[in-house]
Amino acid sequence: MKFRYLSLLSAIMVTGGVCLAQTNQPAAIEDFRPASTNQPGKQYPQVNSEGRVRASISAPQAQKVQLDIGGVRYDLIKDDKGVWTGDSRPQDEGFHYYQLNIDGAQVPDPGSMFFYGASRWGSGIEIPAKDQEFYALKDVPHGQVRENLYFSGITNAWRRCFVYTPPDYDKNTTIRYPVLYLQHGMGEDETGWAVQGKTNLILDNLIAEKKAVPMIIVIDNGYASKPSQTPPQGTGAPVGGAGGNSAFEEVMIKEIIPMIDATYRTVADREHRGMAGLSMGGNQTCQVTFHNLDKFSYIGAFSGTMNGLSTAELDPQTAFNGIFKDGNTLNKQIKLLWIGMGTKEPNPFPGAIGAFRNMLYKAGIKYVYYESPGTAHEWLTWRRDLFQFAPLLFTK
Amino acid sequence: MKFRYLSLLSAIMVTGGVCLAQTNQPAAIEDFRPASTNQPGKQYPQVNSEGRVRASISAPQAQKVQLDIGGVRYDLIKDDKGVWTGDSRPQDEGFHYYQLNIDGAQVPDPGSMFFYGASRWGSGIEIPAKDQEFYALKDVPHGQVRENLYFSGITNAWRRCFVYTPPDYDKNTTIRYPVLYLQHGMGEDETGWAVQGKTNLILDNLIAEKKAVPMIIVIDNGYASKPSQTPPQGTGAPVGGAGGNSAFEEVMIKEIIPMIDATYRTVADREHRGMAGLSMGGNQTCQVTFHNLDKFSYIGAFSGTMNGLSTAELDPQTAFNGIFKDGNTLNKQIKLLWIGMGTKEPNPFPGAIGAFRNMLYKAGIKYVYYESPGTAHEWLTWRRDLFQFAPLLFTK
Repeated sequence: MKFRYLSLLSAIMVTGGVCLAQTNQPAAIEDFRPASTNQPGKQYPQVNSEGRVRASISAPQAQKVQLDIGGVRYDLIKDDKGVWTGDSRPQDEGFHYYQLNIDGAQVPDPGSMFFYGASRWGSGIEIPAKDQEFYALKDVPHGQVRENLYFSGITNAWRRCFVYTPPDYDKNTTIRYPVLYLQHGMGEDETGWAVQGKTNLILDNLIAEKKAVPMIIVIDNGYASKPSQTPPQGTGAPVGGAGGNSAFEEVMIKEIIPMIDATYRTVADREHRGMAGLSMGGNQTCQVTFHNLDKFSYIGAFSGTMNGLSTAELDPQTAFNGIFKDGNTLNKQIKLLWIGMGTKEPNPFPGAIGAFRNMLYKAGIKYVYYESPGTAHEWLTWRRDLFQFAPLLFTK
Repeated sequence: MKFRYLSLLSAIMVTGGVCLAQTNQPAAIEDFRPASTNQPGKQYPQVNSEGRVRASISAPQAQKVQLDIGGVRYDLIKDDKGVWTGDSRPQDEGFHYYQLNIDGAQVPDPGSMFFYGASRWGSGIEIPAKDQEFYALKDVPHGQVRENLYFSGITNAWRRCFVYTPPDYDKNTTIRYPVLYLQHGMGEDETGWAVQGKTNLILDNLIAEKKAVPMIIVIDNGYASKPSQTPPQGTGAPVGGAGGNSAFEEVMIKEIIPMIDATYRTVADREHRGMAGLSMGGNQTCQVTFHNLDKFSYIGAFSGTMNGLSTAELDPQTAFNGIFKDGNTLNKQIKLLWIGMGTKEPNPFPGAIGAFRNMLYKAGIKYVYYESPGTAHEWLTWRRDLFQFAPLLFTK
């Protein structure tokens, strides 16, 4: 993982990178309702059937208040009570990070719940999706999400991971389970898949319908660097540690997997171990798994592949030290290689992922490709990836 | 539990209830450092050795920016780059909720982590305490904090609780554990004891030093009302449900305890079950335990007792339907009754808790009384309560 990757991605993802003035919009359909991501009892922000976001905040002495979402800032209008209100253009369905701007101060919206993304804890909003049932809280048996603290000697820091255990994990303590390691993206942390990713609900629902086998899912932090390595600024540091992710592969192989196998009832072999990740986490997944095929047989790259943000053509004979050149052998080793992305992902993702897929094609390496319809480089793409990917895991 | 209690307490606790202009202060000692509760990589807010809080935010077009902490608003000063900075007076050691005010808008500080309290997710800050070692993250065996989702038929809503399991819980699955039920205060939720309460770290440290027996701790939400009951506004609703807490006792006895005893390896009898809570949760603890002494033998009332906020004298022969009149019998039934509060708690807490203690004295009921030095109606008082209380649990 190169720090350059982080810097480029940062410029793309952090909200406010693109700043447009509000243009004339057609009138919004007046069926706004409080967002599901609101704080308890809060009436704003709201969402309508077009996917517009209506923000509202009392700021009687402010000169200018804006809603900053999807890289666009929308001016809010002040009423005679000092309350500023205004709408965004229709947003893609799914989850988006956003913020407010009050007289130049970029602040979280006090109406929303807060999520870690774009290297900060801040506001997020859910635009209801047509297929939202697959991650809804339903009357099915529920697994647990367990917070684990562990010390990493490699980074000389305490780290935290969340572990999903399937329903009935504690009922019969003789059963052992396969494990999926699931990683977040740039500027996110181990809360990403545990909260906005809805991992537990997606798996609870799949397992209840017998569409996925019961499995353990380990959600860790993708940032890990040795004490001697200077962390770059603004990359979202892990608990108790510095930023940067140059030591992640080593931490994953030497610390996280042994700790999980010692703590949970896993089946500790490559046939029952998978790894997936989104964006930077997809890049990390490719690195960790293809460098350690003795430890993994299921691989998921969600909106991120081994070439990072590079769209340059890849020759399987030479790229990545030639580890992809022998397609026949890889096809026997790998039970599943999954590549996914949203149809609305911005550059450079289509080009970069396309270049990686083209290399796989040239090498004759089999993979499953999935496109999330109408979504960009955001969480609904990745929830759908997990929903489609999990049923294929640990079935061969 | 009366709703009136909530309204009164709300007026006392919600920040901004008292609003004073900044007075001339002596110069601050310039040893400010970023708070431990800051977001990763954020330089502000900072705390100095006097316990002053220095807030700073860029708001180039703002007219007035204030730091709102401890019921006081402090004016920040703008520099030539549009960054506003200023200090509070020294704060008590421990954890405090706070917020910023930008041209009349009350918003979270984007530099801090966010916590649920005062009926909102917002900023919190830790002022280092002299005794902070007891809740520090140390190189000792760590338990897990498990998120559990369960459906409540009484409230017709999904609920969430966090369950602390001690180190080694999964090592030997023949061992069963005693259980402490631990409740938050008004305007807080089940994240309170799990996050700002530091329950897991306090217990990990006590268990490592063999000062407390390994136990399960259940941290649930104190709000629970039947669908037919109209919730009051602004009381902090539980997950998926309405506000108000009129059904809490019923939910606790009929749903939470049976769910926990079915899910975890508990010793399911009164000798191995305790309950404690802070403020409103202390009031609820008294109600639940004294109404159900067949189910509980250890009781902790942290800054809240059965009389709520009333300071009126209590006659044990008649108060609460006379359930406290037979001190001899209660002394045989109750293994521990703990009452705690901070030395700086505001009215009406000293009077109310004093009236309850006076009633216990008149009835000859034994109890342990603890005072947290130099703290008010805040989390350091309650962390200290737990630290002192837990070693006395399940030892008789």
